[in-house]
Amino acid sequence: MTDTRLEIIPLGGLGEFGMNCMVMRFGEDIIVIDAGIMFSEVGHFGVDSMTPDFTFLERHREQVRAVILTHSHEDHIGSLSFLLKKVNVPVYGTPYTLRIVEPRLEEHHLLPATALRVVQAGETVEVGAFSIEYIRVSHSTVDCCALAITTPIGTIVHTGDFKFDATPVCGNAIDVARLRTIGQRGVLALLSDSTNVERPGQMPSERVVIPALEEIFDRARRRIFVSCFASSIHRIQIMFDLAQQFGRQVVAVGRAMERNIEIAERTGFLDTADLLVNPKDFKHFDPSEIVVLASGCQGEPMGAMARIADRSHRQAWMEAGDTVVLSARQIPGNEKAISKLINRCYRNEVEVIDSTQARIHVSGHGAQEDLRLMLEAIRPKYFIPIHGEYRQLYRHKLFACQTLGYAPDRVLLIESGDVVLLDGETAQIGDKIAVNRVYIDDTCSLELDETLLRDRKRLAYEGVVIAGVAVEETTGALLGPPEITTRGYLGVDGEEEEIAELRDVALSAVEAMPPAERVNGGKEHFQEHLRLALKRHIMRLTGQKPTIVPLVVVV
Amino acid sequence: MTDTRLEIIPLGGLGEFGMNCMVMRFGEDIIVIDAGIMFSEVGHFGVDSMTPDFTFLERHREQVRAVILTHSHEDHIGSLSFLLKKVNVPVYGTPYTLRIVEPRLEEHHLLPATALRVVQAGETVEVGAFSIEYIRVSHSTVDCCALAITTPIGTIVHTGDFKFDATPVCGNAIDVARLRTIGQRGVLALLSDSTNVERPGQMPSERVVIPALEEIFDRARRRIFVSCFASSIHRIQIMFDLAQQFGRQVVAVGRAMERNIEIAERTGFLDTADLLVNPKDFKHFDPSEIVVLASGCQGEPMGAMARIADRSHRQAWMEAGDTVVLSARQIPGNEKAISKLINRCYRNEVEVIDSTQARIHVSGHGAQEDLRLMLEAIRPKYFIPIHGEYRQLYRHKLFACQTLGYAPDRVLLIESGDVVLLDGETAQIGDKIAVNRVYIDDTCSLELDETLLRDRKRLAYEGVVIAGVAVEETTGALLGPPEITTRGYLGVDGEEEEIAELRDVALSAVEAMPPAERVNGGKEHFQEHLRLALKRHIMRLTGQKPTIVPLVVVV
Repeated sequence: MTDTRLEIIPLGGLGEFGMNCMVMRFGEDIIVIDAGIMFSEVGHFGVDSMTPDFTFLERHREQVRAVILTHSHEDHIGSLSFLLKKVNVPVYGTPYTLRIVEPRLEEHHLLPATALRVVQAGETVEVGAFSIEYIRVSHSTVDCCALAITTPIGTIVHTGDFKFDATPVCGNAIDVARLRTIGQRGVLALLSDSTNVERPGQMPSERVVIPALEEIFDRARRRIFVSCFASSIHRIQIMFDLAQQFGRQVVAVGRAMERNIEIAERTGFLDTADLLVNPKDFKHFDPSEIVVLASGCQGEPMGAMARIADRSHRQAWMEAGDTVVLSARQIPGNEKAISKLINRCYRNEVEVIDSTQARIHVSGHGAQEDLRLMLEAIRPKYFIPIHGEYRQLYRHKLFACQTLGYAPDRVLLIESGDVVLLDGETAQIGDKIAVNRVYIDDTCSLELDETLLRDRKRLAYEGVVIAGVAVEETTGALLGPPEITTRGYLGVDGEEEEIAELRDVALSAVEAMPPAERVNGGKEHFQEHLRLALKRHIMRLTGQKPTIVPLVVVV
Repeated sequence: MTDTRLEIIPLGGLGEFGMNCMVMRFGEDIIVIDAGIMFSEVGHFGVDSMTPDFTFLERHREQVRAVILTHSHEDHIGSLSFLLKKVNVPVYGTPYTLRIVEPRLEEHHLLPATALRVVQAGETVEVGAFSIEYIRVSHSTVDCCALAITTPIGTIVHTGDFKFDATPVCGNAIDVARLRTIGQRGVLALLSDSTNVERPGQMPSERVVIPALEEIFDRARRRIFVSCFASSIHRIQIMFDLAQQFGRQVVAVGRAMERNIEIAERTGFLDTADLLVNPKDFKHFDPSEIVVLASGCQGEPMGAMARIADRSHRQAWMEAGDTVVLSARQIPGNEKAISKLINRCYRNEVEVIDSTQARIHVSGHGAQEDLRLMLEAIRPKYFIPIHGEYRQLYRHKLFACQTLGYAPDRVLLIESGDVVLLDGETAQIGDKIAVNRVYIDDTCSLELDETLLRDRKRLAYEGVVIAGVAVEETTGALLGPPEITTRGYLGVDGEEEEIAELRDVALSAVEAMPPAERVNGGKEHFQEHLRLALKRHIMRLTGQKPTIVPLVVVV
């Protein structure tokens, strides 16, 4: 390891959406950019979310200097607690970002032990060999930054998540001038968000949703329920502005919604104009006087919006003639939950408006024109597409090469675990490091390993058949008939016949092994013999492969 | 039960997408319109699909006269075998529809025993009190019909799935004149497809996709892989036409694709123009000379398209510079599988074009303008929206009332299990009949009940803890220490400590019950005692609720 080489190692977020985490090492100094979570596709199996594999950081714990946060979305901060439990280092971020982080660290009892270092957009911090400048970018939440990371061999720009919005609703616009200045000084590599590379044109400003929402407010005669992502502070500001314009008060329901509004107001990004009233007072308002901001826009069954639609929310309810506005995109995988929410709303005879019917949502990730602007402002020597599945990274590379004329060897198409080696002149892709997904059960904040998940998938698919056998300790003699029980196992006959049959199979299997071997061959040997006999029988008879658990009790 | 009342009872497809099945009874005569399947949302739990609950038909088996099929899509014919196994009656359908049905009945050994009665569009069949006229409609597959069902108290029109396509690629256009004539004679009730009620305008003709596909064919220099639904015969015809135009041969891969092409050609709906070559000959063709039609457009892991992209297909493969055309919509829930397919394709450095980038797909279900045309052609006394979740049925009702001026009491918003009673003058909604979903495991073509599914969900979520205990038959004395084993259970400590601890808990629980009670109280009583002790301990310690199986072996 020489001191003139920079390593860039994504631990997550490249080749997958979510759990963004990028490691940079120069000499003996490591910084970690973002530590995100990915929401689970396997919730059925008790997995709530996934975090990157931090093994590499644990192995080099003495080199890790800091975590640098670009912004406060879950896919950038959600695994921070899990990382800090393994490697506790200072955390840098903007004021709003760190305020969002705080209660999470508190939940994990990490707050007192963690150094949170506030950085304002425009400021630079020194961390080991790295000099890190925070540059304002526009996005769907507030206080987001790109990073210009200067190292002894050159500057790396990491965009975070961004779009070019010259007229954001809250806070300052993306600092294009600064990005251009940095680009003019020379940038070794640009790491740029690929999320919306498949969308042509430029992503409109957050303000684009105002006219359609204004029309909805204008038309509504009774309550308006708006559900959006609780982190969409620009959107929330628009709702307060419209509430003021149309003489309504605002009720915020749902923990995330209430908390984010409070933090955004405290950090100066949101102006609630004294319109916010306590959810308890919902019942006192005439339907024409109120807007309800509710979390749960993805139809989460326990979300505020679903509970309101379901008439199971303690404080708020809807009635015929009210209006429901779903001001968010449908995250793939959530369509059925959202449809269920809409069905529920219609059962209350309300009007439902979602983003397929009116321009009431806009993405915070830049489309092709934004991506072009970023590449042209920075004009890097090397370009590394980040944040996306292989399809987005590939298309981003293609876009840079075909549209902007980048030579293919100047665009590095890498995925999580790949190691990019830069020496200021050349770029190489080194040996991949092993990165697994780490599955998290939120009930107990514990990690599940792959074996456990595989066992659960198996149990789910065809259930479990359990065979209990008691044998005498010294002789191995069978004591009484085998005991069979099943859970989630289908079988082909009636339950009783099935169990009787399996008992016979188990009995024959036991009898087929000499009593001495049952005890002398070891319990595992005996159990495996029993398991295989049952497995073969069930497979032959029904084609099914339930989990079979033999349980030998030695008496 | 008088002879002057018609009952309309949806067993499936109203309040849900899929498993369409509509029962009509007049006097002692029952007909069943369609018997569809719904693809499983719970595949993890060994459920491949769901069928309607046919209990009502079993209970009135002596009244059931026939199944009347509108067309050959899975959501209209997929549960036919399951229905016929319970109530074997003649099946009516158009030539293409019955040809698609045949091999399925054969798989279930039902073909010899089932009377299949071919009906051409335009023909009328008499079944009990019903006179059923088949009327040609346009849709995404071929040989589709609406039904005009004349009963002693009036005519009911069931649209099946439809759109108004004046220029379908294959077969005749929707018979608007006939629909209008029937409407003019007076229709008691219209049952009309609600799938696309949320889409404004008129659904374009199947031909709308030709220009974009032509451009793709024109640009391609190497192989073209097209994946579409195997039932989309119009789309497949367009591919053959373009193949001919651009001098390519066609290879069809995937069982469904090969079978449907063969049936469509045999029934005269498809003209392959002698361009079809054997998949085995794929390797002999220059990349510029071939189009591959592959099933698996939803990214099904075992689908032909996924296997080709994955380089695991025996006969076909792709190489850099080839073009992949995904000429289908993304069915909600399949986005991730489709994204995986696209990722795989890009790893081969091919171009991928899907329906978000070019107009290469069009729906076969009418949009608002089509729905208006149908309602205005038929001008029914009563209108019943069918085929859709509550949101689509509700919107269809709203559309009829707000846009077309139907009185709300003339539009019956019903869901599966509801019973509509018509006497020619009035309409009432009677007592709901119980309709459950029936879960099917395709491995063994067996039905799973709700309890089994619930058990599997539980097992999947937090695994299983099994406690085996041997007790003496007469005294209830414990023989040896309890045996503990787990599958898919997380715990909080290391595995060995955890098991030792659970063994102690089981031991204490056994000891807490007097030996006599263990045998005299019944095995279930003893097992439940053991289960509760373990459950409480685990819950208190970890917050988890695994399935706990106590297994008492009596010696």
